[in-house]
Amino acid sequence: MKATQKVKRILDNYESDNPGTKANLARILMQGKLGGSGKLVILPVDQGFEHGPARSFAANPDAYDPHYHFQLALDAGLSAYAAPLGMIEAGAETYAGALPLILKMNSANSLATDKDQGVYATVKDALRLGCAAIGFTIYPGSEDQYEMIEEVRALAEEAKANGLAVVMWSYPRGGALTKEGETAVDVCAYAAHIACLLGAHIVKVKPPTAAMYLDAAKKVYEKEKINTSTLAARVRHVVQACFNGRRMVVFSGGEAKDLEGIYAEVRGLRDGGANGSIIGRNSFQRPKAEALAMLDNIIRIYQGKDVETAQSARAAAE
Amino acid sequence: MKATQKVKRILDNYESDNPGTKANLARILMQGKLGGSGKLVILPVDQGFEHGPARSFAANPDAYDPHYHFQLALDAGLSAYAAPLGMIEAGAETYAGALPLILKMNSANSLATDKDQGVYATVKDALRLGCAAIGFTIYPGSEDQYEMIEEVRALAEEAKANGLAVVMWSYPRGGALTKEGETAVDVCAYAAHIACLLGAHIVKVKPPTAAMYLDAAKKVYEKEKINTSTLAARVRHVVQACFNGRRMVVFSGGEAKDLEGIYAEVRGLRDGGANGSIIGRNSFQRPKAEALAMLDNIIRIYQGKDVETAQSARAAAE
Amino acid sequence: MKATQKVKRILDNYESDNPGTKANLARILMQGKLGGSGKLVILPVDQGFEHGPARSFAANPDAYDPHYHFQLALDAGLSAYAAPLGMIEAGAETYAGALPLILKMNSANSLATDKDQGVYATVKDALRLGCAAIGFTIYPGSEDQYEMIEEVRALAEEAKANGLAVVMWSYPRGGALTKEGETAVDVCAYAAHIACLLGAHIVKVKPPTAAMYLDAAKKVYEKEKINTSTLAARVRHVVQACFNGRRMVVFSGGEAKDLEGIYAEVRGLRDGGANGSIIGRNSFQRPKAEALAMLDNIIRIYQGKDVETAQSARAAAE
Amino acid sequence: MKATQKVKRILDNYESDNPGTKANLARILMQGKLGGSGKLVILPVDQGFEHGPARSFAANPDAYDPHYHFQLALDAGLSAYAAPLGMIEAGAETYAGALPLILKMNSANSLATDKDQGVYATVKDALRLGCAAIGFTIYPGSEDQYEMIEEVRALAEEAKANGLAVVMWSYPRGGALTKEGETAVDVCAYAAHIACLLGAHIVKVKPPTAAMYLDAAKKVYEKEKINTSTLAARVRHVVQACFNGRRMVVFSGGEAKDLEGIYAEVRGLRDGGANGSIIGRNSFQRPKAEALAMLDNIIRIYQGKDVETAQSARAAAE
Amino acid sequence: MKATQKVKRILDNYESDNPGTKANLARILMQGKLGGSGKLVILPVDQGFEHGPARSFAANPDAYDPHYHFQLALDAGLSAYAAPLGMIEAGAETYAGALPLILKMNSANSLATDKDQGVYATVKDALRLGCAAIGFTIYPGSEDQYEMIEEVRALAEEAKANGLAVVMWSYPRGGALTKEGETAVDVCAYAAHIACLLGAHIVKVKPPTAAMYLDAAKKVYEKEKINTSTLAARVRHVVQACFNGRRMVVFSGGEAKDLEGIYAEVRGLRDGGANGSIIGRNSFQRPKAEALAMLDNIIRIYQGKDVETAQSARAAAE
Repeated sequence: MKATQKVKRILDNYESDNPGTKANLARILMQGKLGGSGKLVILPVDQGFEHGPARSFAANPDAYDPHYHFQLALDAGLSAYAAPLGMIEAGAETYAGALPLILKMNSANSLATDKDQGVYATVKDALRLGCAAIGFTIYPGSEDQYEMIEEVRALAEEAKANGLAVVMWSYPRGGALTKEGETAVDVCAYAAHIACLLGAHIVKVKPPTAAMYLDAAKKVYEKEKINTSTLAARVRHVVQACFNGRRMVVFSGGEAKDLEGIYAEVRGLRDGGANGSIIGRNSFQRPKAEALAMLDNIIRIYQGKDVETAQSARAAAE
Repeated sequence: MKATQKVKRILDNYESDNPGTKANLARILMQGKLGGSGKLVILPVDQGFEHGPARSFAANPDAYDPHYHFQLALDAGLSAYAAPLGMIEAGAETYAGALPLILKMNSANSLATDKDQGVYATVKDALRLGCAAIGFTIYPGSEDQYEMIEEVRALAEEAKANGLAVVMWSYPRGGALTKEGETAVDVCAYAAHIACLLGAHIVKVKPPTAAMYLDAAKKVYEKEKINTSTLAARVRHVVQACFNGRRMVVFSGGEAKDLEGIYAEVRGLRDGGANGSIIGRNSFQRPKAEALAMLDNIIRIYQGKDVETAQSARAAAE
Repeated sequence: MKATQKVKRILDNYESDNPGTKANLARILMQGKLGGSGKLVILPVDQGFEHGPARSFAANPDAYDPHYHFQLALDAGLSAYAAPLGMIEAGAETYAGALPLILKMNSANSLATDKDQGVYATVKDALRLGCAAIGFTIYPGSEDQYEMIEEVRALAEEAKANGLAVVMWSYPRGGALTKEGETAVDVCAYAAHIACLLGAHIVKVKPPTAAMYLDAAKKVYEKEKINTSTLAARVRHVVQACFNGRRMVVFSGGEAKDLEGIYAEVRGLRDGGANGSIIGRNSFQRPKAEALAMLDNIIRIYQGKDVETAQSARAAAE
Repeated sequence: MKATQKVKRILDNYESDNPGTKANLARILMQGKLGGSGKLVILPVDQGFEHGPARSFAANPDAYDPHYHFQLALDAGLSAYAAPLGMIEAGAETYAGALPLILKMNSANSLATDKDQGVYATVKDALRLGCAAIGFTIYPGSEDQYEMIEEVRALAEEAKANGLAVVMWSYPRGGALTKEGETAVDVCAYAAHIACLLGAHIVKVKPPTAAMYLDAAKKVYEKEKINTSTLAARVRHVVQACFNGRRMVVFSGGEAKDLEGIYAEVRGLRDGGANGSIIGRNSFQRPKAEALAMLDNIIRIYQGKDVETAQSARAAAE
Repeated sequence: MKATQKVKRILDNYESDNPGTKANLARILMQGKLGGSGKLVILPVDQGFEHGPARSFAANPDAYDPHYHFQLALDAGLSAYAAPLGMIEAGAETYAGALPLILKMNSANSLATDKDQGVYATVKDALRLGCAAIGFTIYPGSEDQYEMIEEVRALAEEAKANGLAVVMWSYPRGGALTKEGETAVDVCAYAAHIACLLGAHIVKVKPPTAAMYLDAAKKVYEKEKINTSTLAARVRHVVQACFNGRRMVVFSGGEAKDLEGIYAEVRGLRDGGANGSIIGRNSFQRPKAEALAMLDNIIRIYQGKDVETAQSARAAAE
């Protein structure tokens, strides 16, 4: 399918990439219900690694089977599916070519004693498994942050040379950071900016809170009157930090919550100009029918077609 | 020997592997008395490294000779023999092609002061020695866990590219883990899941106890009413954590114990759907005749043909 | 454009370099308003990495867009533009061949807990992006200084072999160094000298203060009556430390300050024989028109054509 | 010289080695007065590295000259000469092909503050110098033991692939080990076993004392009534730990002592089935004539021809 | 120029080296006023790295220019010039082929907090710059000593394979060593011996004092009555530790001192059989005319032609 004008304009921002990488970005942007719109909803399933299998899948035991997630992403019309090596290997043949895959290259686990991740996959793995992109987590602020940066440098260079796209999870953590600081708006924008500077094509961060963490930053936010009062405003600031929109940024869903909470958050992301959402636990921990309905509504929010958005639009028009 | 339908169905789960790796998995699954059944009994002999020669072999001094173990695995009709480099080298010619060999790549020893292992073999070693698989131990939770994960990543990638299978010993250890936590059912299932995510073809864990270790996991086990009351139930849970059975999982025998204890445990493993057992000290520390009798009975349990199983079946039928 | 005699004389000092590297040094020396004069003004934009996006760009939000900086350097007639990987990638096509680019290979960030930097780019990146030089920061004195030296050794060797130039930011930091010691004249000259010994073509240091840090050095400065009373005198000493002028040395502008402060400093640099300035925040944090006016005046200072210099010249002539 | 039946039987135990490595083992086993007997006496001269030149050579200043040791090993009819890089380089041409050389790859020194060794030679060095084997020391129990194991893995693999033999010095040291524990019989047998598991062709350990170190081992030695009452019995146990004799094990002489002490110890080694001795300081710290006489007597002990052995044999026969 | 018999006899001691390396050793030995005599005087200029530029060059500001040192070594008729990468690069073309160059590969600096050095040059650098040898410092006794040994192993192997010579600065430092211990005669001889064992062609140490550091060594020096009463006697002992003279050893001049002090020390070195001197600060910190006069007299001392030596010879003859 030829890329739409909207997608072409996005691809034009990736000035240094070879046609292979651009083709893989196009595949992700042209996939599913949001295909061609420049918006993305991605399914990530690395929670088994991060939190263990029972905490991840016991609520919906069908999800123990790796095939479940490929099929869910496909049935929901999502843009891509991201998972660790073993999860991708287990469905690589059945779902070959069915949807863009993002091979997660590193993960942490709940038994760990330090703020780092183990790298367990290679660019060659991504190529032999037919993936469109590699995914890598960095922890800005961690004692191991420079080592993680050097790991992703090697992987990203090899990925780009081989026509793959690079997705970076940029999660401030460790070092002197407080729990609140991890999602503070100044830190979140900083983390997104670092991922862009490292050469990421798509950046994943958590939705920023209104908290401020670094004193030197706080002074500037106040002096320059940067609006951080609403989620939409904060997202707009993060988009600005992503090379003023020249790099795509998607936001994770965080802990499982109720539907209205999710929809409200997604509307905030959309209104702030986010390129999309990456929603794991909130998708696969619900019964499949419920998950499909929820994901459909999220997609409609990004399309500006969900009921509440339509109502507000109508109200505003009146 | 052409693979049985049962074996073919197992091989189909390894969607990303090349024919070379599938052939080696098939060799293991078609070997010995359980050949073709989809069940495995493996003889591992790395206790000399882990505990020293006297603690391992003095009870049955014939076992000091590396040939003894090849011959025992062969005479007992086992599925494969796993051992460190030197042990395999010492019988490589005499037993060339006689049975599938798993080259253990790393080991700890009783003199060590930290929770890590030394890597002492390479994929080239496995290839020049005619092995069917490499074996590697990870210690989830250890301070060195990410380094171990990165070591096995490199070895596993090279092994798969060269048509070998990958067996992972996943033993939680070190860091904040308590002794009880190492075999707690939540941790055991987590460890098995991590090995699957890292791309293992066959996972080896210890039989899980009814203990729970991680608080966040405990809440989920209780909320979702996950049955951990019997060994069979716990094994069923571990099998689920292994991609809902898409990856084979075998259980170690642990410390030497009496025959009835062993048989009861194996029946629990079988009833939980384990793919088999990996039995070291309980095999080679007995006189050979006794070991052969015991292994034959274990195999019969997996075949559903042992006396007690037959009696219960009869009782249930009446 | 053929190099001027002045530039040729500078190039002659780089006795061991291949024609490719000399050509790239010539490109930088022949670029912009100072082209051919042997003087340089470079625009560096790594503050987003070092201080975060808001602290860097909120004062002049156009600067969030990477294109802004390419265009600013071009419009101001500067000698080169230096920035991290992502910033260069984002304008690599639009500005291909328009001006010499220096790819910054490593950076620190404000969340870091140790005095080191992460290396996130490679010489291959510099080549595929059409850069003229690589840029690398070392922290003489830091606990990680020897590791940084070994990192730049590998990159510099590869860069030179591929016809690129090497620019080193030499910033004393960490270890036993006090804040005052970081810019003390003895330490600054030492840092510049180390960069030359490591094979840098262009050295970047901060303007030295009149402070002295190392006791053993202090005795020598007193005994040999080294003049450190004015900025010009101190810069002359740093130039001497750069192989008596055989290596180019440029000075950073430091924190944003008022125009008169900047001009006075630049006149001091010029009078001491500095090869030029490298001015980041003071450029891009002002509205573009103001920045262009300021940069034009700085260039005129280096050309000896600014008003105040002309006046003093006249006064002296009278 | 074609190998004797005795030597061929030994070579048969090295089932995985290529003809190049077997040829080098044969060269060592067919060299000197013990050639063809299956017994070895090796001259090692790394004491200069371990203890310094004066402590090693001042007692017999001729020994400062590297040629002295080649000539001593040759004149005494020994099996091989083992030494660090510089020592071998210094006589490589004069003694080319004269006797099998073992290139020591790593050493410690008396100034060191941790229990590790520096690796200062490569397999390519061994090849260009015409050596028959590489020698490497591991310190089982040391905090650095796994790193040492990983160093020897790389070197041993490359050595074997290039037709060289591998000799491992296995010296328990560091970590929690006490001085007494280093030579305790359980630890010594364990260390010898580890070297075999790592793929050594020839293992070097110190003569074990009657001490026991590890509690878990002690219980087994008592339960299984392992005889450790005499040196011969303990050596027999170590030989058993060396794959029941499938790997050669030689014993060091330890500190300089009187002749009767040395001969008694060698008789114990011989009676326990040791493959031989490796005698440094006791050889080269004596005047050459005395050293030759002593080494001749040691060789006669291994041949069963020394006076005291002959007398006891006669006494026993009467 | 064909090598003299004296030089050929020295070259014969380097039994394992290829003609390329022997040719480079010959170039050094045939260069300058001492050419053909088997004696060496080398100019080393790494003090700028070790102590900073002002402490090194302010006393004689011409020395800030790298060309000054090439020319000084040439004018004084010295054997070779040794310096860090940048210093050699800066004169590589002007002085191409004019005199043998030794590329220093690593250095420390006065800002460092640990006893290590950064490696900043490669063998390829030495080759592209037309050097005859590489120079490398090890710190026996330092916590990083084994890492330094492993660094020089890789560089020395590559250097020798490419026909370069290897000069090792062996400076005991760090760990448990006291300041006095660093130059104690037992430690100095040990350090020289270690460099020889590591495969150095030329060893550089500091002149040993009469102090003794290691207790175990002290006992041997007393028992064996090793003469350490004069500098000549101590140097003789160090020469012995250098494979009984099979490896060349040169001595540094240490801190700047008066001429009589220098000449007396050099006479001691000569009388002890040293191969020569390596004199940095004492050369380039004097005005050039004085330095040339001093170096000429030092050379005459090694030739046995200086006035005082001639007088004593005459006195002895009467």
